[in-house]
Amino acid sequence: MSTTEASLPETKAAVLCEALPYIRRFSGRVIVVKYGGNAHPEAQSDAEALALFAEDIVLLRSIGILPVVVHGGGPQIGALMARLGKVPEFRDGLRVTDADTLDIARMVLVGKVNRDIVGAINTHGPLAVGMSGEDAGLITAGPRDPALGYVGDVLAVDPSIVIRLVKEGLVPVIATIGSDAKGQAYNINADTVAGAVAEALGAEKLVFLTDVDGIRSDPADEKTRLSSVTPSEIDDLVAVGVISTGMIPKAAACAHAVRHGVASAHVLDGRVAHAVLLELFTPEGVGTMVAEP
Amino acid sequence: MSTTEASLPETKAAVLCEALPYIRRFSGRVIVVKYGGNAHPEAQSDAEALALFAEDIVLLRSIGILPVVVHGGGPQIGALMARLGKVPEFRDGLRVTDADTLDIARMVLVGKVNRDIVGAINTHGPLAVGMSGEDAGLITAGPRDPALGYVGDVLAVDPSIVIRLVKEGLVPVIATIGSDAKGQAYNINADTVAGAVAEALGAEKLVFLTDVDGIRSDPADEKTRLSSVTPSEIDDLVAVGVISTGMIPKAAACAHAVRHGVASAHVLDGRVAHAVLLELFTPEGVGTMVAEP
Amino acid sequence: MSTTEASLPETKAAVLCEALPYIRRFSGRVIVVKYGGNAHPEAQSDAEALALFAEDIVLLRSIGILPVVVHGGGPQIGALMARLGKVPEFRDGLRVTDADTLDIARMVLVGKVNRDIVGAINTHGPLAVGMSGEDAGLITAGPRDPALGYVGDVLAVDPSIVIRLVKEGLVPVIATIGSDAKGQAYNINADTVAGAVAEALGAEKLVFLTDVDGIRSDPADEKTRLSSVTPSEIDDLVAVGVISTGMIPKAAACAHAVRHGVASAHVLDGRVAHAVLLELFTPEGVGTMVAEP
Amino acid sequence: MSTTEASLPETKAAVLCEALPYIRRFSGRVIVVKYGGNAHPEAQSDAEALALFAEDIVLLRSIGILPVVVHGGGPQIGALMARLGKVPEFRDGLRVTDADTLDIARMVLVGKVNRDIVGAINTHGPLAVGMSGEDAGLITAGPRDPALGYVGDVLAVDPSIVIRLVKEGLVPVIATIGSDAKGQAYNINADTVAGAVAEALGAEKLVFLTDVDGIRSDPADEKTRLSSVTPSEIDDLVAVGVISTGMIPKAAACAHAVRHGVASAHVLDGRVAHAVLLELFTPEGVGTMVAEP
Amino acid sequence: MSTTEASLPETKAAVLCEALPYIRRFSGRVIVVKYGGNAHPEAQSDAEALALFAEDIVLLRSIGILPVVVHGGGPQIGALMARLGKVPEFRDGLRVTDADTLDIARMVLVGKVNRDIVGAINTHGPLAVGMSGEDAGLITAGPRDPALGYVGDVLAVDPSIVIRLVKEGLVPVIATIGSDAKGQAYNINADTVAGAVAEALGAEKLVFLTDVDGIRSDPADEKTRLSSVTPSEIDDLVAVGVISTGMIPKAAACAHAVRHGVASAHVLDGRVAHAVLLELFTPEGVGTMVAEP
Amino acid sequence: MSTTEASLPETKAAVLCEALPYIRRFSGRVIVVKYGGNAHPEAQSDAEALALFAEDIVLLRSIGILPVVVHGGGPQIGALMARLGKVPEFRDGLRVTDADTLDIARMVLVGKVNRDIVGAINTHGPLAVGMSGEDAGLITAGPRDPALGYVGDVLAVDPSIVIRLVKEGLVPVIATIGSDAKGQAYNINADTVAGAVAEALGAEKLVFLTDVDGIRSDPADEKTRLSSVTPSEIDDLVAVGVISTGMIPKAAACAHAVRHGVASAHVLDGRVAHAVLLELFTPEGVGTMVAEP
Repeated sequence: MSTTEASLPETKAAVLCEALPYIRRFSGRVIVVKYGGNAHPEAQSDAEALALFAEDIVLLRSIGILPVVVHGGGPQIGALMARLGKVPEFRDGLRVTDADTLDIARMVLVGKVNRDIVGAINTHGPLAVGMSGEDAGLITAGPRDPALGYVGDVLAVDPSIVIRLVKEGLVPVIATIGSDAKGQAYNINADTVAGAVAEALGAEKLVFLTDVDGIRSDPADEKTRLSSVTPSEIDDLVAVGVISTGMIPKAAACAHAVRHGVASAHVLDGRVAHAVLLELFTPEGVGTMVAEP
Repeated sequence: MSTTEASLPETKAAVLCEALPYIRRFSGRVIVVKYGGNAHPEAQSDAEALALFAEDIVLLRSIGILPVVVHGGGPQIGALMARLGKVPEFRDGLRVTDADTLDIARMVLVGKVNRDIVGAINTHGPLAVGMSGEDAGLITAGPRDPALGYVGDVLAVDPSIVIRLVKEGLVPVIATIGSDAKGQAYNINADTVAGAVAEALGAEKLVFLTDVDGIRSDPADEKTRLSSVTPSEIDDLVAVGVISTGMIPKAAACAHAVRHGVASAHVLDGRVAHAVLLELFTPEGVGTMVAEP
Repeated sequence: MSTTEASLPETKAAVLCEALPYIRRFSGRVIVVKYGGNAHPEAQSDAEALALFAEDIVLLRSIGILPVVVHGGGPQIGALMARLGKVPEFRDGLRVTDADTLDIARMVLVGKVNRDIVGAINTHGPLAVGMSGEDAGLITAGPRDPALGYVGDVLAVDPSIVIRLVKEGLVPVIATIGSDAKGQAYNINADTVAGAVAEALGAEKLVFLTDVDGIRSDPADEKTRLSSVTPSEIDDLVAVGVISTGMIPKAAACAHAVRHGVASAHVLDGRVAHAVLLELFTPEGVGTMVAEP
Repeated sequence: MSTTEASLPETKAAVLCEALPYIRRFSGRVIVVKYGGNAHPEAQSDAEALALFAEDIVLLRSIGILPVVVHGGGPQIGALMARLGKVPEFRDGLRVTDADTLDIARMVLVGKVNRDIVGAINTHGPLAVGMSGEDAGLITAGPRDPALGYVGDVLAVDPSIVIRLVKEGLVPVIATIGSDAKGQAYNINADTVAGAVAEALGAEKLVFLTDVDGIRSDPADEKTRLSSVTPSEIDDLVAVGVISTGMIPKAAACAHAVRHGVASAHVLDGRVAHAVLLELFTPEGVGTMVAEP
Repeated sequence: MSTTEASLPETKAAVLCEALPYIRRFSGRVIVVKYGGNAHPEAQSDAEALALFAEDIVLLRSIGILPVVVHGGGPQIGALMARLGKVPEFRDGLRVTDADTLDIARMVLVGKVNRDIVGAINTHGPLAVGMSGEDAGLITAGPRDPALGYVGDVLAVDPSIVIRLVKEGLVPVIATIGSDAKGQAYNINADTVAGAVAEALGAEKLVFLTDVDGIRSDPADEKTRLSSVTPSEIDDLVAVGVISTGMIPKAAACAHAVRHGVASAHVLDGRVAHAVLLELFTPEGVGTMVAEP
Repeated sequence: MSTTEASLPETKAAVLCEALPYIRRFSGRVIVVKYGGNAHPEAQSDAEALALFAEDIVLLRSIGILPVVVHGGGPQIGALMARLGKVPEFRDGLRVTDADTLDIARMVLVGKVNRDIVGAINTHGPLAVGMSGEDAGLITAGPRDPALGYVGDVLAVDPSIVIRLVKEGLVPVIATIGSDAKGQAYNINADTVAGAVAEALGAEKLVFLTDVDGIRSDPADEKTRLSSVTPSEIDDLVAVGVISTGMIPKAAACAHAVRHGVASAHVLDGRVAHAVLLELFTPEGVGTMVAEP
């Protein structure tokens, strides 16, 4: 950034004024942000990328917006498994999760990734509270497929605890472990959880931070980014295979959320610094927005 | 403003991020702004200047800051008196105020200037509520000097009604008429009222919008603007005559307020667009800040 | 009053006991009172008449009734216009209101008449809060007829601010200026505003203080005062011309209010001392009551 | 009462206006009224006298005053004892109370007198709640003198339950039975209880309804009624024997209450219809007022 | 009880743990208990039986259950009538109640039986508040049959006052006197009142403490106690005469209550020490439970 | 346990009644329980021991007591380190904690031990919420000794978040990681944290579940268990070496807590089933109680 231009008072005033209607519109509303384990690959370090993200979250909160963070942590789980000498087994792209793998996943998600996000936010003040979907009945889960072991699906979301914390001015950071009525834990796809939580909260926005620049009509051509699509168009893009692999859960969660009370959903490029702020507070936006026409 | 530079995402993000710590610090705090009747002489019209001011107030409110506006209206009072063929009589710089003059002053302040400010703010939403110091016992006044007629001093401030409105998310706009226990109204210096209201509210800041660029160590030399002074320094500057005439009530109100619980007081150049925003949300600030060392 | 009879304990006890069921019935209910600019012509002075009115309002409030005062001020507007040398222009009985006339009307209503009523009430304590329909979105107005300039009709009433003040134990005094979404003010007929406010508040009663003794079946014969009429009978009386000129807006507002949730509406003779108290707290009442049969 | 004079509007208005400052002063304040078992001997029946008293209590409540009724019932206890053939034994003017006598006293006070008062009030609406000092720890009592059996003194008053009911808009009616920590009940002098309850509640007024016209400087001469005395003067009048027998507990309770936070205490002639209303709401008052000078 | 077995830690722990699910289930729920005037005939004294009952009520309250006690007092009424030399007259098993008999019944119920229960509970702390159905409009009654005098039926129950007290952590103890709108009192069957109060409160349970071991299919054979029946089975048992005389009002109240929102009703043997605790907190239960299948 | 004896109604009633005064005394009070990582060595499995503990916590909560659980997890940390091939280094009995070891400790405490406790409690309902001392500023920590790396001391406790959750009826389960203002995490001794949290909450009790039967005057002789000691006696026992090694932090925390507002502290034998229930609800208690004399 050119510090010269930023130091001009009229530039500063212009940016602040431009952001005004957006700040007013979103004040007091819940924004669910899925923070990806693999965003910011270009940042000099993961810690720096996380610090930038945390700063955005704190900014949102400080101006009256109510952010809720959801995260997974596939790469970090893989790293600890490797360190422990365990060979991961995948079936249809999903990690087969035995009891030991579940323990490892839970330790990494709840005890490492979640903690790092909470810590990064709390350098700005005692704002963040780490949670697992197991807390206070937040996420009731069940097995997806016996062959996959403790890989879970979301059966129900009870957002009471999240609502309480948000009302107290706190920022819940949710690790995507759920449990069944017997206390058995399950590891759940974080994109799916983010969508389900946004719906249960009646969120204003559901935001996915990814390492791509949005949804494209031609995945290979970056000039074909779609700035806005409808849930129906999402269905079509999946049907014809334009949306594929890792983007499918995100795109499906976006479409489902918008059909169930969330005003809009966004797939953003987490590698752009302050992508969330730019998407929310400037008219141009970044990434792809999913909304009813 | 160059739209080119403002459209750079990194510039926008930088300005938003720079404003973050200030927004957090002032959120939920009361800022009393004295809006001067003669600011913005360079604006193409008074209405345009007022619209810019109103936009700033709404921005403050929308991000959780609690602005309270105080205003006078000497020039407008003079204009109506002239139109009515009344010759104003001044004694020691203060307008001698008989019953008819008081009626005129009250009509102008409460029924014209106050209304214009309320209207300008409310183009952004139903936020502003016009008030007179007579409402609900807000300002108890008494005569300053029998020879001056209905020119009043502030005897007491009961900020209850202002606190109620502010808690409801509204922006009180206060015309500086007070009354005694018998219902007799008095016209009071608006700078003095602004200071007294800021003290009674325990405001974070007291801001005077003027048509000069701040307090100078040499009034004739614009390069001598003082960016920061203490209440004691104010006393000295008044004693030696550097601060004089119309700046005295403002400077005195600043010093008194800072000595009675207001964190800082500011004399800003209301001719700079969005001066309030720039003073509050950028590290450089504009004008002169009065604070304990 | 004969002090002899009033000093008899049994008389006093009888009056207090008679008032009991009425006080109970109206406690906690809203009463909207339109205070006319031309009532009390027989009082020794307008100030004395206003003081009597204020005393009644304070009495109502002190026993748990929630009065809301609405006022216009045609004669006072005319007086200032005359003093300024402006010649009023009327079309179909309505004052053509250009921008300057609107400014004058607003100054008089908000800055003079409203203030006088607030001051009179507040000699009894910090109870009254002056308001304009422009405050906090109270009255949204639009033009009645382009030929009339800034003469407005009520498009919507948002009673939130009035409800808040009333709940705090305060007495709102409303000047009948409204504004549109762009902040443009309009002068509105006070009788119409009183009715619209009463409806929006779900008031128990709407009371018009006038300088006649009620609605008569023969306007020229004071013995034909109707003590009680229905909205339908109002329609008929207007249709045949018995109700005419200045009484039409009052009668129409009464009929409309009763048809939209207000329990009863009253046209009282404001020249009778304490007419409001007598209407509310004695079985005989005074003036004309409009209610569904 | 002459209905002629009462029907004059100006008379009615005058009485209502005269009552205004008193109604305002006492609104929201607690008034403890001791209702005597032997008041209203001139009423055609006890039931009629009670109905008049109940009407006053309901009037007070309906205009925002918070009445609490305390009562004894010596004559009624004597009547049931006589019917049961028990011969009462007195020692120093106090009834010796064995277990059977206590049962009888409690049945009469709680099950008869209290119920009659509650019933009379509740013909006006579901307002009154009968209580015994035994309820929810209201009155902790201990024996006055072993020779007197279950005659008690007040050791402590916990007014929580009374405050709760009063806040809910209800009228507690308290029978003067207390109990110790083991649940043993005691019969306590009602005048003493009324004073202790008024003190514990920080009441505005303590009112004794009696069958005399107040405290006299010469008990035999009705022209010597004292309209106002101080606690010290009460002490002197008791010391010299001017206040004697049944008036002593009332006078002592008045003096003690005024010395412990109750603004004023009153001994009224319960035979005057609506004595409470007249004492509270007219400047002349009736009976004797005890207050600090 | 063998102190040996009770002192074993594992026994104590087992009992506490067994009670856990019941305590959780009933916490915060209302339990209406009809305390019979003739229970506990085997206790060494009525006072001892009452003390055991009071201990159970306090236990329930202290663990978050909300007990409401309803009681009659036929035998005690009969005793006072006998002592007063009045000969009771019965018609179809119901006492003919003239004004004097009503006074006696009310004194006994409100002033004696109610007080004894309140006193017994309050030896554990200031928990109980005695009430009559006359208080604050709790029970509106009307005459059952002119030939019976002041024997009443329940026309309506306004549980507001009971709900308030229960929310404050207090235990209402209700004597079964009701009143009509004119304040006329009526004596009402306590079983009927208990059922009506339980329904109005939406109670979890309605419990009758009696001196039999429950409802039997053969009244003469104690081995035929029914541990559980449905409302329909109650109807049948009454129709064929198996349920008769004094059990009919209890059984009918149970069936009616269960059909109107009360989860279950119970007829227990009040002679078993701590019958209420055992019924609520142990899986075996005692007596007969009425519930929908 | 002999089911025979437990099924006797009188035994059950006796146990329930015995527990009554304790349940009343502790209702609404906070009990901080330190759950030891090495308790229940005699249970057939750790999971079974944990299930028993969870049942006790839920029982406490269901009867209105407010439990807060604090835990460490030394053995489990050691196990994962071993599995990862890391050799722990100890200095003065404290584990030297480099960044990698801290990550491991945090994963185990927050992601494994904490989760297991939350899961065990939540099989009874959505009651438990897992927390780290890092959440919402709960525990501010600083380094104990540079040579030990990220081993921390408690610098401050902000119990706001715990109080909020407890008021909502939830059970906080706290892993003993703290953080400094920069977000750097520290591993802290769990006994110390438990004491600091109990003090900050003004807890009624601080309970340590251990694998010994309490504090002994002769550590080698189980007959010398002290059932009750004072903080001063603790000081003496530590000074003479009777209290040593692992018991020192617990004993010191007990003494400190009792000296800073906690009513009593307890060292219990966690191997006794339901030790917490027996200590709280039976007069004999188990283990050692620390309290002021």
